[in-house]
Amino acid sequence: MSEYEVESLSGGSAGRVEKRFVTLGDPEPLGLECGRSLGPFTLAYETWGDLSPARDNCVLICHALTGDSHAAGYYSEEDRKPGWWDIMIGPGKPIDTTKYFVVCSNVIGGCMGSTGPSSLNPATGAPWAMDFPVVTMGDMVKAQKLLLDHLGVSRLLAVVGGSVGGMQVLEWAVRYPGMVAAAIPLATTCEHSALAIAFNEVARQAIMADPAWNGGNYYGAALPEYGLAVARMVGHVTYLSDEAMRKKFGRSLQDRCGLSYRFEPEFQVESYLRHQGRKFVERFDANAFLYMTKAADYFSLQQAWGDGSLVNAFARAACRFLVVSFTSDWLYPTYQSKAMVQAMKKNGLDVSFCEITADLGHDAFLLPSARLNSLVGNFLAVTQARERGAPPVSWTAPGADAAREDAHAL
Amino acid sequence: MSEYEVESLSGGSAGRVEKRFVTLGDPEPLGLECGRSLGPFTLAYETWGDLSPARDNCVLICHALTGDSHAAGYYSEEDRKPGWWDIMIGPGKPIDTTKYFVVCSNVIGGCMGSTGPSSLNPATGAPWAMDFPVVTMGDMVKAQKLLLDHLGVSRLLAVVGGSVGGMQVLEWAVRYPGMVAAAIPLATTCEHSALAIAFNEVARQAIMADPAWNGGNYYGAALPEYGLAVARMVGHVTYLSDEAMRKKFGRSLQDRCGLSYRFEPEFQVESYLRHQGRKFVERFDANAFLYMTKAADYFSLQQAWGDGSLVNAFARAACRFLVVSFTSDWLYPTYQSKAMVQAMKKNGLDVSFCEITADLGHDAFLLPSARLNSLVGNFLAVTQARERGAPPVSWTAPGADAAREDAHAL
Repeated sequence: MSEYEVESLSGGSAGRVEKRFVTLGDPEPLGLECGRSLGPFTLAYETWGDLSPARDNCVLICHALTGDSHAAGYYSEEDRKPGWWDIMIGPGKPIDTTKYFVVCSNVIGGCMGSTGPSSLNPATGAPWAMDFPVVTMGDMVKAQKLLLDHLGVSRLLAVVGGSVGGMQVLEWAVRYPGMVAAAIPLATTCEHSALAIAFNEVARQAIMADPAWNGGNYYGAALPEYGLAVARMVGHVTYLSDEAMRKKFGRSLQDRCGLSYRFEPEFQVESYLRHQGRKFVERFDANAFLYMTKAADYFSLQQAWGDGSLVNAFARAACRFLVVSFTSDWLYPTYQSKAMVQAMKKNGLDVSFCEITADLGHDAFLLPSARLNSLVGNFLAVTQARERGAPPVSWTAPGADAAREDAHAL
Repeated sequence: MSEYEVESLSGGSAGRVEKRFVTLGDPEPLGLECGRSLGPFTLAYETWGDLSPARDNCVLICHALTGDSHAAGYYSEEDRKPGWWDIMIGPGKPIDTTKYFVVCSNVIGGCMGSTGPSSLNPATGAPWAMDFPVVTMGDMVKAQKLLLDHLGVSRLLAVVGGSVGGMQVLEWAVRYPGMVAAAIPLATTCEHSALAIAFNEVARQAIMADPAWNGGNYYGAALPEYGLAVARMVGHVTYLSDEAMRKKFGRSLQDRCGLSYRFEPEFQVESYLRHQGRKFVERFDANAFLYMTKAADYFSLQQAWGDGSLVNAFARAACRFLVVSFTSDWLYPTYQSKAMVQAMKKNGLDVSFCEITADLGHDAFLLPSARLNSLVGNFLAVTQARERGAPPVSWTAPGADAAREDAHAL
């Protein structure tokens, strides 16, 4: 049985949540790696659960490339679509909101409430556009640190995230070793590969080739929606896999009457990609996409922290790690996770590693998986017990046999 | 030692060659699979070597997506760049022009001399643009058949090609079984996968999103060069591999002073892709790119010839096959070649199959490889001997030890 046949996993909804905003970097602006500084700036964030009196139960969630602070729950009674990681976060779920104080913020450079290129530049009163400073994973993490200071959290039980969120997790573990008890980087890499940079560059070029992009100055005018849609289509190809696409679409046609001999979308995979492109344009800022991909391309833990050596980079880390990769992820393949695990182990760090068999490609970390849920739930429970000096507690999803079984795998 | 460390393989130049043009489909137009017809139309073609008196030594070369008739040799004394498969075709080379009469034509729907969307529509006197009929691999092969009729060739010693050229090879073997003694499909597939369609669709959308594309009516005006460049960049990512990109570019920067924190190309892989995009715009027609990719997406040998069964499709074939795949080709992975080999074998066909270890991705079939040269050279030599009822002859590249050794592998 595939892990992914478990369509519905146990646990309740995180319920209503509100997007909050905090002004940070004031009066002291945030120094950025590019040499410029940013401040005051806004972070949009959401929280679930309560901070314990000992302030020792905070789990920070880091979102992926085009994600946001809305990791779980609903904004209103009418809201039908929960947050992007609702399968993972909620009462009785692996990131259990009855036990943990869960925080997720939109990264700086983004467009979901935090300051980014679509925000107003206080110096000009106009949107920053391409005058916004290039931000790195390190800058994003430093901004998150300021948010935690604001929330009165001085130590994280865990920092968790997949893909570009996983890069932030790794950055946290190395940049603020004294603040992190456990780190869970999923479907990610310590260093963006040439292939990953290539895909991002194609996507960026698609945006920048759109005349409506206009050097980034499209605010209040026509949006570079064609370019951004193509960029998103590139992304979606990389998020799936050959096998996932074969199973999901194969060569099925929209129209059962056969080939059209025209250039309208006719294969289902074509319609899927065009749909994803169109949907994305409604919710995401093209310049923010440029900045997010650039931050991912710049990410190299070994360059930033180890003079080119990943072993040296992890010499700074002090937390427990749960590293998870997925067999069909060809954007950040398992060999890249194994490299980070080896570097962690060479530093004597406490590392659990699991490669989950999944045909869903890079997207797998966002999809229901009893194994992933079990791994994360147990790892957090054990970490909390250790932090509190209590005996280890194993996490069991209510009624989930598969999860109980998986508890032994850790 | 990697096969690809053999940078320079033996054999001489095919020398001067001229691009010729023939008018076909007149007075009888070519019936196309879409239901329309085309004629009169032009095929651009080139030949090397001489047709034997018995007319039994013709090798047809089928070019890939954006290739042309110029497979080998030079157009003039000043010409510094040989044809695209010069490493394979020439005196003493695997496709030996002292032994074989080698023919290569530009496909219909293309833009390198054969009739395609940039050609004038005789009915209107204006370029066809998107009024050009959608052509298939079958249509391309039927046009090639008319060229061979014109050249007085009624039986091919072999038909050879890689990638989209390999699709034509497979189509030849099934469509005209009585005309083909041997077929050599390289780095190809019997059926375009959802992943391959997805990449093509992203590329097409990049072109069609360019306002200069203008519904295909850009002739005599500004070309959709940005869209076409992005489309080509998508292609180039798929032609390489994770490993090839890592070895070729890694995270090397153009500028050794470090990261620029700007959006100009700085990683070498970015510059490479932009360069490939720019170069392509100078030589290729955007509409032709749409038609070529569509023909590839439509290709399904099992649908066209076997009611969905590849085994049934190959029941029509009668030739010998040499099937070659490359380990790092993720556009048309080895499992797809193995599927065709199995279907051939189930029909009792004479099949040789080799998966060549190569880290160069899909492009590997175009790059120097002692093993590929040896496989092709020997297969052709043995085929010719069999056709003539002579004892088998093994092909040896002058001075190439690796090639001699490989001869046994066949």
